[in-house]
Amino acid sequence: MLLKNIEKPTLLLDPKKCLSNIAAMATRAKNAGVHLRPHFKTHQSHEIGNWFRDYGVDRIAVSSLRMAAYFAADSWRDITVAVPVNLREIKLINELSQKTTLNLVAESIEALQYLEKYLDRCVNIMIEVDPGYHRTGLEWEQADIVDAMINLIEKSDKLRFEGLLSHAGHSYHAQGSAEIMNIHRESAGLFERFVNRYKAQFPEMCTSLGDTPTCSTAEAFPGATEIRPGNFVFYDLTQHHIGSCQKEEIAVAMACPVLAKHPSRNQLVIYGGGIHFSKDRLQLPNGQLSYGEVVKLLPDGSWHPMDTPFQVISLSQEHGVVQVDTEWIEKIQPGDLIGVLPVHSCMTADCMKSYLSLEGKKVDMCKIYEW
Amino acid sequence: MLLKNIEKPTLLLDPKKCLSNIAAMATRAKNAGVHLRPHFKTHQSHEIGNWFRDYGVDRIAVSSLRMAAYFAADSWRDITVAVPVNLREIKLINELSQKTTLNLVAESIEALQYLEKYLDRCVNIMIEVDPGYHRTGLEWEQADIVDAMINLIEKSDKLRFEGLLSHAGHSYHAQGSAEIMNIHRESAGLFERFVNRYKAQFPEMCTSLGDTPTCSTAEAFPGATEIRPGNFVFYDLTQHHIGSCQKEEIAVAMACPVLAKHPSRNQLVIYGGGIHFSKDRLQLPNGQLSYGEVVKLLPDGSWHPMDTPFQVISLSQEHGVVQVDTEWIEKIQPGDLIGVLPVHSCMTADCMKSYLSLEGKKVDMCKIYEW
Repeated sequence: MLLKNIEKPTLLLDPKKCLSNIAAMATRAKNAGVHLRPHFKTHQSHEIGNWFRDYGVDRIAVSSLRMAAYFAADSWRDITVAVPVNLREIKLINELSQKTTLNLVAESIEALQYLEKYLDRCVNIMIEVDPGYHRTGLEWEQADIVDAMINLIEKSDKLRFEGLLSHAGHSYHAQGSAEIMNIHRESAGLFERFVNRYKAQFPEMCTSLGDTPTCSTAEAFPGATEIRPGNFVFYDLTQHHIGSCQKEEIAVAMACPVLAKHPSRNQLVIYGGGIHFSKDRLQLPNGQLSYGEVVKLLPDGSWHPMDTPFQVISLSQEHGVVQVDTEWIEKIQPGDLIGVLPVHSCMTADCMKSYLSLEGKKVDMCKIYEW
Repeated sequence: MLLKNIEKPTLLLDPKKCLSNIAAMATRAKNAGVHLRPHFKTHQSHEIGNWFRDYGVDRIAVSSLRMAAYFAADSWRDITVAVPVNLREIKLINELSQKTTLNLVAESIEALQYLEKYLDRCVNIMIEVDPGYHRTGLEWEQADIVDAMINLIEKSDKLRFEGLLSHAGHSYHAQGSAEIMNIHRESAGLFERFVNRYKAQFPEMCTSLGDTPTCSTAEAFPGATEIRPGNFVFYDLTQHHIGSCQKEEIAVAMACPVLAKHPSRNQLVIYGGGIHFSKDRLQLPNGQLSYGEVVKLLPDGSWHPMDTPFQVISLSQEHGVVQVDTEWIEKIQPGDLIGVLPVHSCMTADCMKSYLSLEGKKVDMCKIYEW
């Protein structure tokens, strides 16, 4: 009975749900004729990373050079660091490029000039273009900068042009399949314009896009040779809210000890706060803010969504308040455990630093902050 | 030159500002005739904890039993775990009570009965009462429960009645000294009602209250024998917004590498996101949301507030967007560092897991999640 020994906030991992999410995305990629390059920033775990190998995955994306080092140490040999390269980590870049094929992202001539000057050996460059999200990447009006960057790369023996990359992060603001597909069509269209500009010159280039909402919804990725979703490995309440998944597909849940109950206002105080869940929150259809949704927790650690779920309505540093009803509060005592689905599983996993698999095993994660 | 070797998001700590904040609060407590029991959940560091000893501090508060264990290991011998006790950690309670005077917080008869049954040796009990914040603690209408709890404690040889504790967390919603003082008067008044009910029976009892806004503002704490603020050790933008401190008193700042710049929209993309800052945010007087405020960073790591500060306007998992102006963006290049004051220093410190002191030394923190 898994729950019996849990003393503190614990991130439960259901391997069956997780493997099923991986299998489904691998199938979607195959059917769409694109490679799957999963983004490993969500799970940050050697063990979970290895589950992907059985589905033919041999290339990954990460969100920092230190995370690249963590996965390179577990024999991943084709790693895209999917954000504009941090030039201050040039030493780590030179160490990593000895061990693995490293695809760095650039969006300025200045960054390429710096790399050209300080690289020990050749790395691949993905040029980031902006599909309408306006966080990173060059816009269509800046295509002359992309041209100049490619020219610079072509003349360098330290840089190799690997292809184009984009991230349509605005899909996270969508609600429902129709909106997701609108963003997908628009952003994929912008991306394809760039792809068409360079594909005659570089017919073999890698063209990479994809986030969990569009990759969970679209069946085709015109212009792309690979997709790069990450969150789908666990999904979460935000993805359910967007329309990317069913609640039953969410593969992680927090188990939190109940510290106190207040029948006069139907509230529980749980051990589990901002340092465990993160402070990401979700506005529910009724306008209320939720920091997590209560699920029924069984003694073996598995969980099921409730018909009328209760919400975590506030989070302090280490503690949360859960709004329940009169019937439920009578059944709960201090010392009990309750299960909570996270609003944003990537952030919750990063806070928790490890998982407890329903098979009873502790699953470790990257501890980047220690380096 | 401290900044030269910084490769990744780093939490800078100015020891002079920190020591000055500690000295000021110690003086305030002395002048008010109360003990200072600082809440160590903000810094979570042996080294910073030791800085308090020079000011006569010999008692502390923490927010979890694991944090109590961390500080007990550094010879703190009077520790209040200032949240309703987590009964699932009874084993750790029994280990800790061998080493240190442990003051546990309870707010129900059920919790006391459980402790009475499973404790190996005597611990002190603080009963939590609600000063109007309505998160934890018993309300005045429930004073009969407090009576019953004291009766139960008096009959037990495992439990010793230490006193009353309250937390006026709603002071965090105040703006300006006048509002802070209103909340202080109201919450201290509610607390004093409880104190008066029991002080004839327990003239020596400990009566503990205090949060950073009220302790930074009020000069008297009627009814209290000790105050328990925590955040003041660093302060942050939230405390400045509330009116607890000057910006110049904020003792920590993030140093973040610039990854990209977008002159068309006057935005910088920095390495530094939700996993570094936490996702706590602040609504500025103009309605805008801020996740951090840019400061001028000098080569030795020290910083100064800007006259018209720029804000971090959004945070992803590892990256942030900073809105700047035309003049500034021309001076900044990818690979530069910028300084950012945190919205909530307790959460940012917990995310970062260590500090870089301006003296060039790494200052370690508690790593609770590893236990």
